[in-house]
Amino acid sequence: MGRWEPGAGGRLREAALNLYLERGFEQTMVADIAERAGVTARTFFRYFADKREVLFDAAAELEEKSLAALEAAPATASPLEAVAAALDAVAAIIGHDRALARTRHAVITANADLRERELIKLAHMSAALADGLRRRGIGDAEASLAAETGSAVYRVAFQRWVDADDLDLREAIDQSFAQLRTLTASD
Amino acid sequence: MGRWEPGAGGRLREAALNLYLERGFEQTMVADIAERAGVTARTFFRYFADKREVLFDAAAELEEKSLAALEAAPATASPLEAVAAALDAVAAIIGHDRALARTRHAVITANADLRERELIKLAHMSAALADGLRRRGIGDAEASLAAETGSAVYRVAFQRWVDADDLDLREAIDQSFAQLRTLTASD
Repeated sequence: MGRWEPGAGGRLREAALNLYLERGFEQTMVADIAERAGVTARTFFRYFADKREVLFDAAAELEEKSLAALEAAPATASPLEAVAAALDAVAAIIGHDRALARTRHAVITANADLRERELIKLAHMSAALADGLRRRGIGDAEASLAAETGSAVYRVAFQRWVDADDLDLREAIDQSFAQLRTLTASD
Repeated sequence: MGRWEPGAGGRLREAALNLYLERGFEQTMVADIAERAGVTARTFFRYFADKREVLFDAAAELEEKSLAALEAAPATASPLEAVAAALDAVAAIIGHDRALARTRHAVITANADLRERELIKLAHMSAALADGLRRRGIGDAEASLAAETGSAVYRVAFQRWVDADDLDLREAIDQSFAQLRTLTASD
């Protein structure tokens, strides 16, 4: 996920997300986005391959940074601690702009195709983190379980964060991990 | 997921899965399936809406039975115990035929569209279980976390079960829950 960055890219992203929310994703054309951002459609395509990319262009960065954080975790870190480090890296990228995240989330939630795309991106990231854990010497099933559990923790934390007014995304993740420990302890 | 049930439906399912595995899902036509099963294409369409339905026609039954098991869990059951009851119901349906599950899993794993479809079906089931937990009075975030964690446990257990020779699916699920407790205890 990007930021409300300055310049044409930032204006295009802001215009696109607001139009998707107001009119619906399907109903918004690239020409509408460019017009609202005060640029040409040609400029839009300098920043984004298509209108869906406005929503998903940060997935590669998120996966790369979270994997780097997992790999940089101390060798003594438990599997879930390494996953928590990866989620911290995600929070560092998207956690500073709840308004952007909330708008993007509302747009995705309103459209079945976009929900599926988001699900696939998250599954891809979870698989990458599981592979990263295997490279740290964690067993196959344990690595998958830790990565998938981390993914569950993240999704729940993210939802609470976008719904909240003053909760920090990092705090929300910490709280979800604490809730997971409570759940498994009472199992 | 169905069974190698007797009659034309069972023969069609077996023929379809074997052809998908041998030739690939995309390359297999309904006429090929009907021919191998020794019936007409018209008979195929009495059992399945299309060739994808051979793989996913049991999703509704799995969701319904697992939700019923969750709802039938004692009021004193913890959220994860209720989810475990739901997964037991899934295991009771698909756990008796590893050969079928293994073939189906291999076919789905080999095809990106089918992998996405499977991911969406699992997400749908997880959301239904979370809703079921909410109706049991579990808080919103806790219900999502328990259902998503259960989904992670199931996916890892399922993979170990299809890869194994003598492990029972129920045992594999129990082992994954135990592994989850170990992971969260060392976090």
